[in-house]
Amino acid sequence: MPSTSSLSVHYQTVLTLQTRAKSLQRFTMEVQDAVRESRVSTGLCCLFLRHTSASLVIQENADPDVLLDMETFLAKLVPEGNYYRHSAEGPDDMPAHIRTALTHTSEQIPIMNGWLALGTWQGIYIWEHRSRGYRRDVVVHITGV
Amino acid sequence: MPSTSSLSVHYQTVLTLQTRAKSLQRFTMEVQDAVRESRVSTGLCCLFLRHTSASLVIQENADPDVLLDMETFLAKLVPEGNYYRHSAEGPDDMPAHIRTALTHTSEQIPIMNGWLALGTWQGIYIWEHRSRGYRRDVVVHITGV
Amino acid sequence: MPSTSSLSVHYQTVLTLQTRAKSLQRFTMEVQDAVRESRVSTGLCCLFLRHTSASLVIQENADPDVLLDMETFLAKLVPEGNYYRHSAEGPDDMPAHIRTALTHTSEQIPIMNGWLALGTWQGIYIWEHRSRGYRRDVVVHITGV
Repeated sequence: MPSTSSLSVHYQTVLTLQTRAKSLQRFTMEVQDAVRESRVSTGLCCLFLRHTSASLVIQENADPDVLLDMETFLAKLVPEGNYYRHSAEGPDDMPAHIRTALTHTSEQIPIMNGWLALGTWQGIYIWEHRSRGYRRDVVVHITGV
Repeated sequence: MPSTSSLSVHYQTVLTLQTRAKSLQRFTMEVQDAVRESRVSTGLCCLFLRHTSASLVIQENADPDVLLDMETFLAKLVPEGNYYRHSAEGPDDMPAHIRTALTHTSEQIPIMNGWLALGTWQGIYIWEHRSRGYRRDVVVHITGV
Repeated sequence: MPSTSSLSVHYQTVLTLQTRAKSLQRFTMEVQDAVRESRVSTGLCCLFLRHTSASLVIQENADPDVLLDMETFLAKLVPEGNYYRHSAEGPDDMPAHIRTALTHTSEQIPIMNGWLALGTWQGIYIWEHRSRGYRRDVVVHITGV
């Protein structure tokens, strides 16, 4: 693509997602809706999760077993138990912080021809690490032309 | 927010942070100062750490025990020892590289109304993985209007 | 750096990389070539990998043993075996998804004076997590002035 200099669009919106306990939930479509709304054709879509006990990942969108295996693995890697100093917010809170640090708080996906440039098998997920569901805010920042 | 096309600001600065051995150190305020300096109201703040044995995370800013638990967990997950081929720079160097790969070299935070759009409990941290403190450079790139 | 408002460049290209089984491969130079092509002097280079069983990391570019140690560590942390529900695509597929979630699908590097603002020891790597090589697409999005 040749370089073009143009007036840039800067678009922001906040998606509020209702999560479920210790599981991954796809919200690709909500992000694509924001891209459409922004009218950006060539650009970048940045996602930022405003929480420290849930995280973002871009993962396979086909077999739901992948999501279960991911959760099972992380639950074993970062177990609940008497290992932690920080326990006032419940046994699931400190593992949730660690699980967040090992995955991602921010992600970015290029926009090509008005569409998220995801691979065929990629979906955008929020991963709730606490032992109940919460309302979680994702800031979507879109810039481009 | 409606899409607006405008001349964009591109602002860069480098923060040099003095770290302490194997611990997390908050520098949210230094980043917010850079945002103010840039005069960007709606935009994106990107952070990039120019090192491979320290990392960035966005984590809880309230209970300091969270930070100690994070360090304890990662020290156990990626132990020092005779496991590594790469040992010429000391027993703490290779674990530091792995710890960096499992956390983050770059982060991004949207800017809304001139402020970092962090959640209430979020702080920006540099995580030193070596067994002594270093001077570490974080490139701050701010774009927006 | 003083803030400057200007017409922004938005440049995109796709790098297709041939990977090798379960190993890291540097492609810093291909990314720097894209930066040169974009003619951006001050800006941001965003990388996005369009796959869920390979990942991106920014790591040491000097001692190749570092790369071997990284692979050995992750192979032990996320072993192949009968632990996973998702096994239809082979024993290496589900570990590859988890290894991807623990590392990175997107990265970003500021551009200063037309060059990636990498530290002296930093290289950009694609990390193949499957047990054979694949052709992998990385979208490069460059914005700046």
